[in-house]
Amino acid sequence: MKRISVFDTTLRDGSQGAGIAFTVEDKIKIAKALDSFGVSYIEGGWPGSNPKDELFFSKMKKLGNLGLKNAKLVAFSSTRRKGIEVSEDENLCAIIKSGVKTVCIFGKSWDLHVKYALKTTDEENLKMISESVAFLKSKKLEVIFDAEHYFDGYKSNKEYAVKAVQAAIAGGADTICLCETNGGMLPSDIQKIVRETISLFPKIGFGIHAHNDSGCAVANSIAAVEEGCIMVQGTMNGIGERCGNANLCSIIPALELKRGYECISSKKNIKKLSELSRYVNEIANLIPDDTRPYVGNNAFAHKAGIHVSAIERNPETYEHINPVLVGNTRRILISDLSGKSNVISKANEMSLSIEDTATESASEKVKKVIDIVKDKENNGYQYEDAEASFFLIAKKALGSFKPFFSLVQYRVIIEKDTDGSIVSEATVKLNVKGKEEHSVAEGKGPIDALNKCLFKALIKYYPDIKSVFLMDFKVRVINSAANTAAKVRVLIEFSDSSKSWGTIGVSENIIDACWQALSDSVEYKLLKK
Amino acid sequence: MKRISVFDTTLRDGSQGAGIAFTVEDKIKIAKALDSFGVSYIEGGWPGSNPKDELFFSKMKKLGNLGLKNAKLVAFSSTRRKGIEVSEDENLCAIIKSGVKTVCIFGKSWDLHVKYALKTTDEENLKMISESVAFLKSKKLEVIFDAEHYFDGYKSNKEYAVKAVQAAIAGGADTICLCETNGGMLPSDIQKIVRETISLFPKIGFGIHAHNDSGCAVANSIAAVEEGCIMVQGTMNGIGERCGNANLCSIIPALELKRGYECISSKKNIKKLSELSRYVNEIANLIPDDTRPYVGNNAFAHKAGIHVSAIERNPETYEHINPVLVGNTRRILISDLSGKSNVISKANEMSLSIEDTATESASEKVKKVIDIVKDKENNGYQYEDAEASFFLIAKKALGSFKPFFSLVQYRVIIEKDTDGSIVSEATVKLNVKGKEEHSVAEGKGPIDALNKCLFKALIKYYPDIKSVFLMDFKVRVINSAANTAAKVRVLIEFSDSSKSWGTIGVSENIIDACWQALSDSVEYKLLKK
Repeated sequence: MKRISVFDTTLRDGSQGAGIAFTVEDKIKIAKALDSFGVSYIEGGWPGSNPKDELFFSKMKKLGNLGLKNAKLVAFSSTRRKGIEVSEDENLCAIIKSGVKTVCIFGKSWDLHVKYALKTTDEENLKMISESVAFLKSKKLEVIFDAEHYFDGYKSNKEYAVKAVQAAIAGGADTICLCETNGGMLPSDIQKIVRETISLFPKIGFGIHAHNDSGCAVANSIAAVEEGCIMVQGTMNGIGERCGNANLCSIIPALELKRGYECISSKKNIKKLSELSRYVNEIANLIPDDTRPYVGNNAFAHKAGIHVSAIERNPETYEHINPVLVGNTRRILISDLSGKSNVISKANEMSLSIEDTATESASEKVKKVIDIVKDKENNGYQYEDAEASFFLIAKKALGSFKPFFSLVQYRVIIEKDTDGSIVSEATVKLNVKGKEEHSVAEGKGPIDALNKCLFKALIKYYPDIKSVFLMDFKVRVINSAANTAAKVRVLIEFSDSSKSWGTIGVSENIIDACWQALSDSVEYKLLKK
Repeated sequence: MKRISVFDTTLRDGSQGAGIAFTVEDKIKIAKALDSFGVSYIEGGWPGSNPKDELFFSKMKKLGNLGLKNAKLVAFSSTRRKGIEVSEDENLCAIIKSGVKTVCIFGKSWDLHVKYALKTTDEENLKMISESVAFLKSKKLEVIFDAEHYFDGYKSNKEYAVKAVQAAIAGGADTICLCETNGGMLPSDIQKIVRETISLFPKIGFGIHAHNDSGCAVANSIAAVEEGCIMVQGTMNGIGERCGNANLCSIIPALELKRGYECISSKKNIKKLSELSRYVNEIANLIPDDTRPYVGNNAFAHKAGIHVSAIERNPETYEHINPVLVGNTRRILISDLSGKSNVISKANEMSLSIEDTATESASEKVKKVIDIVKDKENNGYQYEDAEASFFLIAKKALGSFKPFFSLVQYRVIIEKDTDGSIVSEATVKLNVKGKEEHSVAEGKGPIDALNKCLFKALIKYYPDIKSVFLMDFKVRVINSAANTAAKVRVLIEFSDSSKSWGTIGVSENIIDACWQALSDSVEYKLLKK
């Protein structure tokens, strides 16, 4: 089995992504998680470039590098500046000072960049590369050389790109990483150039660093490994500048599960991949992309009825891998494209106790649920993002639901005054455990006001709802009719900080659609308690 | 230059994506946009499988297929059911009845599926394929055969997979599309299998249909074309079940701009790619993925200082293509503002008379508009789909706007009573031509009520507004905050039956956001008169 080093640059190149701003504490948390997952290298930052990264390395030093078990901590920098001695270069001195044992420096391998970015001669750039690498090697450091823009360089001036690699090897580099910096290459480009390059330097270990501007970063990385690269640089969830870096959450399972490479410290850790992906999203405060391969919420979600029934017989029919292998789960979506099989498996997933579909009474129960779901769907409801509402109507169809409260009436007033100020006030009258509760609240908008009212009326009966808060809501007009009476669908997501759930409301009246979703959400919370 | 047919299945396979629920009107809009962009085929749905798709085809028939200029409309179905005559198969009859001239039917090419999904014999499946294709050909239809799970099938039982293709060819299929249904293949798998398959049937045209479960759908599609496929099936923005379908927004520019293939009716239409991508997002009510290659908001966004300065000297240094080629724009992230050139070209497009940017006063005018647009954008406004609102703020910035009315105050009351009935009542006080107009109206919902009030108050002053009606409205939460005070963006589309226009409102209060869009719309109509 061939060993591939995974070089994670979430903390360095990943932090260049729009909207990403890691604190030093964030970085330490992610480094810890990456190490326990089992990557080989963690690039922590560029100590010469900004004080935050410098602080990160000094903290890591103090913490004894967290006692990293699997990964080597890496500091990043560039080759020395033009026209000076290596020992005078502040950036190079900063990475030495950072106390790491492995460094990664990038140098130019595209003559266009030598001219436009460095504004120096081709010869000086080659010297900058070899001298910088040799200097770091003289300090007994492991040196990875990132050949920036190698593929563009190779295409436009092959001879010079190869010379840049040669200079790094001459300086004593341990690994040469070929960087596809602009991200525009397609896999057949990568195959050809990696193959030709490795054949020129058969004794050196090569790596690949890809960006996703053509949507091929994952494929390009895998192609490079198949052509002989032994290191893959990338980021968790593919975060990074522009269209992102190569997504390690897609590359690692492909290499491990589909090509038999050994990428992480222990094969069984791949099961933690989905968890790791979510953890990094959370720390980066990114909304997770549900469609992300392997780790996304929808990666194993099935909607089409024919798919679902086949999967129940044999999962391999519509799943490229077993979701359990990467710590993800299968989801059955309820939609108007779905048949009986979707409803049954969804109901079972939610422990709605209609498992035994062989008996006649069970099959009748299923029919009841399906009839109601179909009827609701015809009226514009959809349950794939509103599992809590599905749970409630299934419960109701099965006759096993007891309401916690019932609505008597509500009123919402939104008033904009001459001075431009807006007031939203709601009043709600509920019947709770035989008593009438009348509450009033103001909110930042009508939905906020209604929500506050509902909680005010219920809290003394059901103190558990205290922990519930509204996370997100979506509104969509379903049937675009040529008037304002079109139906509106509202999806609301709630959370009690340990779990989150979605509910739905549909009405010609947007406020009433919201009310349905709000009250479903509270009932679901109380039912699940 | 080699011609590749782009087969768009946004409306069929794309609609399987979680959270996607196109109305018939949505589908018609998208079909129109795809045709004017210039794809070769538009797969509209599966008429046999659900009433909505049936309705779509019958509407399209009535509309004379919209007079599609470039694309052929395609109906989808499966091969006949086992053990019956083709002519008895309801699905096949439904696609014939749908009135299209091109059909796409899928059949099984993986013996595992024949066993577990179809539960029939290998022989019967081959008959189902050849007979179904032959039946459709006898009706003079162009037939594309989708060989479902071809790659998994080829890997596990090559001989049978090839037989399935052979059966379709024997039936007279015009094109054989090799489907990577489970999405788990890597490009090197695709290369090998497509190469071997095409060599067996050198006279037939092959297509590729890829899913993105390994994050390689784009790369796999491109690899298949490089190996000789002449048709690519995919969806706009890669929407589709699980991790999505192959994203045509990445495939088309790669093939056109990087490999010299001819994919769409006119090369210059690639400039409309970003616009088309956004339009489909809007209709599907999907939050756009900013990191999407080529078309995403961040696809050409630069954050790193060294990148920015190099780009100013030579854009090629950090951009794989010129963003203008796909209708996207370069963004420098520090100053996150609308480009001057954007504003000028839009203003000119709307005859806002700031054409002459050479003079100093014109340049000052442009600056004024940019400042206001920038400020609005920072507050969540966006004008891509709200040109009427853009027109108004530009007019205001240029000092050439005279208001037709001004708001004094409004009040909206929504009341749900004990019997479940809901009343929405709005009152609006306006200042019109120096007079105070106070109107009241009830509506099917609060927005309908407000809209009616507004018209009631204005109609005697401006009888022209009589012809104006609300076509559609969309609501989106902009900043998903952990409370109900998140900002809401409302887009409203109006029409006076000869023209339609869009307006926008943003507020923490959904009713006020609607009010902004409603009043903008009326002002625009009056201004344009």
